[in-house]
Amino acid sequence: MDTLYMQVADRLQAMIEKEVIRIGDKLPSVRSLSKEQGISMSTVFQAYYHLESKGFIEPRPKSGYYVCFSPRRLPEMPSISRPVKKATEVNVSEMITEVFSHHAGEDLLRFSVAAPTEDLLPSAKLSKSMLAAMRNTGGGLNYENLQGNLNLRRQIARQSLQWGGSITEHDIVTTTGCMDALTLCLSATTQPGDVIALESPAYCGTFQLAESLGLKVLEVPTNPVCGVDLEYLDKAIPKFKIKACVFVTNFSNPIGSCMPDKNKRELVKIVNKYDIPLIEDDIYSDIYFGKLRPSSCKQYDRNGNVLLCNSFSKSLAPGYRVGWTIPGKYKDRVLRLKLNHSVSSATLPQAAIAHFLENGRYEHHMRNLRKMLHTQCLRYQQAIADYFPEDTCVSRPQGGYVLWLELNQSVNTIELYEQALRRKVSFAPGRIFSLQDRYNNCLRISYATPWSKQVEDGLKLIGKLAAQMG
Amino acid sequence: MDTLYMQVADRLQAMIEKEVIRIGDKLPSVRSLSKEQGISMSTVFQAYYHLESKGFIEPRPKSGYYVCFSPRRLPEMPSISRPVKKATEVNVSEMITEVFSHHAGEDLLRFSVAAPTEDLLPSAKLSKSMLAAMRNTGGGLNYENLQGNLNLRRQIARQSLQWGGSITEHDIVTTTGCMDALTLCLSATTQPGDVIALESPAYCGTFQLAESLGLKVLEVPTNPVCGVDLEYLDKAIPKFKIKACVFVTNFSNPIGSCMPDKNKRELVKIVNKYDIPLIEDDIYSDIYFGKLRPSSCKQYDRNGNVLLCNSFSKSLAPGYRVGWTIPGKYKDRVLRLKLNHSVSSATLPQAAIAHFLENGRYEHHMRNLRKMLHTQCLRYQQAIADYFPEDTCVSRPQGGYVLWLELNQSVNTIELYEQALRRKVSFAPGRIFSLQDRYNNCLRISYATPWSKQVEDGLKLIGKLAAQMG
Repeated sequence: MDTLYMQVADRLQAMIEKEVIRIGDKLPSVRSLSKEQGISMSTVFQAYYHLESKGFIEPRPKSGYYVCFSPRRLPEMPSISRPVKKATEVNVSEMITEVFSHHAGEDLLRFSVAAPTEDLLPSAKLSKSMLAAMRNTGGGLNYENLQGNLNLRRQIARQSLQWGGSITEHDIVTTTGCMDALTLCLSATTQPGDVIALESPAYCGTFQLAESLGLKVLEVPTNPVCGVDLEYLDKAIPKFKIKACVFVTNFSNPIGSCMPDKNKRELVKIVNKYDIPLIEDDIYSDIYFGKLRPSSCKQYDRNGNVLLCNSFSKSLAPGYRVGWTIPGKYKDRVLRLKLNHSVSSATLPQAAIAHFLENGRYEHHMRNLRKMLHTQCLRYQQAIADYFPEDTCVSRPQGGYVLWLELNQSVNTIELYEQALRRKVSFAPGRIFSLQDRYNNCLRISYATPWSKQVEDGLKLIGKLAAQMG
Repeated sequence: MDTLYMQVADRLQAMIEKEVIRIGDKLPSVRSLSKEQGISMSTVFQAYYHLESKGFIEPRPKSGYYVCFSPRRLPEMPSISRPVKKATEVNVSEMITEVFSHHAGEDLLRFSVAAPTEDLLPSAKLSKSMLAAMRNTGGGLNYENLQGNLNLRRQIARQSLQWGGSITEHDIVTTTGCMDALTLCLSATTQPGDVIALESPAYCGTFQLAESLGLKVLEVPTNPVCGVDLEYLDKAIPKFKIKACVFVTNFSNPIGSCMPDKNKRELVKIVNKYDIPLIEDDIYSDIYFGKLRPSSCKQYDRNGNVLLCNSFSKSLAPGYRVGWTIPGKYKDRVLRLKLNHSVSSATLPQAAIAHFLENGRYEHHMRNLRKMLHTQCLRYQQAIADYFPEDTCVSRPQGGYVLWLELNQSVNTIELYEQALRRKVSFAPGRIFSLQDRYNNCLRISYATPWSKQVEDGLKLIGKLAAQMG
């Protein structure tokens, strides 16, 4: 049950969204709303603070609160992807390395990085947990248990209650981040030469991983709202002899789709029908902007065909490299591969995050992080509406870190990228999210960097450059 | 140049080794030796302390120093391995998992683990470095540079001076331990179905890694003193179309051989002749009992064909999972694989070890560790001479963590292992160090556990059980 102030805030938000109250309109004064609704002034204040934190309204000194944002004014959504329907030998260009090598540059405005910046992370509290971990593990010098820190696995299992899972610590294997989890799961379920299915567009790192394992990739058409086209997939699995699917079911990167529960259930049915594994990259699922965490396919998995992969890299500490997988019936194979390839994962980072979770610090931090990212998402969307050409389409993700933009067909975003880079602004051009010659007029913008004049100027610059090219 | 007391100690040690002074003999008193040699009494004391720490002599109250150990009395060396000369499909038994799953058990005397126990490690000082690392990296929350912590790479490059390398920080890629380094290097240089050459016997983890990458293995005959049979190798490479060699050139595990410089130079020539990579697993090279660190093949490598792999797991902290590779001309491939499979290695463990090295703590710690391990090695050897059947052969490693024992042909060490395990003592049976049905009368004993009554009783037990079976 929502608190009273949330109910008030939700009603106001709905009115703003429907443009009953429009941008620039003044909201009722706190006193008058309190009288009208028969609620306390502090409840009204809380509701207004909440809407302010979400970027819908702003206070003006000695005047009151004004509407400053409406999702109605957002640009159109990008269209459903229509990749060429054939399996492709992976041969990923050097552009990916180029785009992400700029991570290290110091004076670059990075709209390319889909990970939290330091100011979004609970540095001090996590360091306290690290100190506790050092005390509890005798300095963390010894090998950790192969399957992973027991306490961490227990905490992760406990969290699974939130998304309807019924996972125990025995089902979980910790890893060195989510890419390591994906590597282990793909290695455990495929042979070189096999075809796997990915979304289109899909995260470029997954293409590169597939390439390094000698796999071929079929790109599945993907809807920017509800994810992969299941009808297409159902036919493609036998036709292309697909041996595994790797999908980001929640807030997919880069397109931002989130599969409805109905589709998740259907997807699990399909992989069960063909008895192939579904590797569910669930790394963004905890970054939701709605009231509830979306479900995962794993919760509908009764046959052990779903291998869920996740990490704390998008929520707590990318540099800790702590991830995990719930590999279903492939657990033994995953464990053996983990033993062969790394003996075990580092002791201290696992123990520190376990301590952080155990002491209830995670939920508090995540509430703040989600709120901040949601606000940033809305502000970035607004700025794109303001500064980009009118025919720009932009995704409306309900979570995650990125916006997917579709510009006029005449704009080549690789050229745009190079022009922006000269001006010290970087983003991810659309081309790198496919193996085919597609998405040349698309780009991915991460809203991880907190809003500032510099961010605004950076978006303005990209918009201006795009307008010149269109 | 050795200090004076070391010169004295060395002369005395030589006399003990040649049995000029025999077990039970009393050494000259400190005063008399001081007078005879014209050196100070404190120099004599230092020499005696040194020999005591190495386990050669022992003080008896109110009497003086007595010889208590002579390597001459050690059992024979094991014979040169003669593996079946054909490439074998890797299909490693579950025994390996079984042997090492006992890591986790609490009340087991583990002669099976070839890694330092906690009491050999600099827990307090490393924790101080971890605290410094937390301060210097803002809590270590962010992704580390793909190639690895710059300071750590600089420190490793500086150390390479000691073994004659001329490595810079640009040549090094950090990894999540040595197995991760081996995984990256093997993945970068081979394709599934390729044949690779390993020593015989070889570390079981390397067999398992090869299996998981779909590789076939040729086992090369190996001399317990000077390592792989190079004449054999030179013919085998073209004959079996070997695509890569993976050798532990210093203090190989389990057989303990250390290739002489001449052989290392020759080995590099051979791999250059066929232009195939040599993956040099150098993980034990810093655990030397002689005066100098042995050389590595890498120092003779002019063509970039040698990929050196190492870690801090045997010297500082297994649980930190910090390793590295110097991948020669395969660096770009290794870097790309690292990016694809793990994005980067954990930030804090790298920074902590860099700080530890930078502050000169490594050499001091290693001097102590080497001395302790050398003493333990000698004591274990002595106990095996005392408690095992007379026809037992045992290796005489000049470094590393393990002894390789060859028992009477009639003894099956898998059976011996099972009997010992029931009495809460574990070791590694020889069979797991080959893919062929070999080494059934051999076993590997780690001397990592500091000498104690319990250790002595454990060795006595194995010896007794072996005698009953022989």
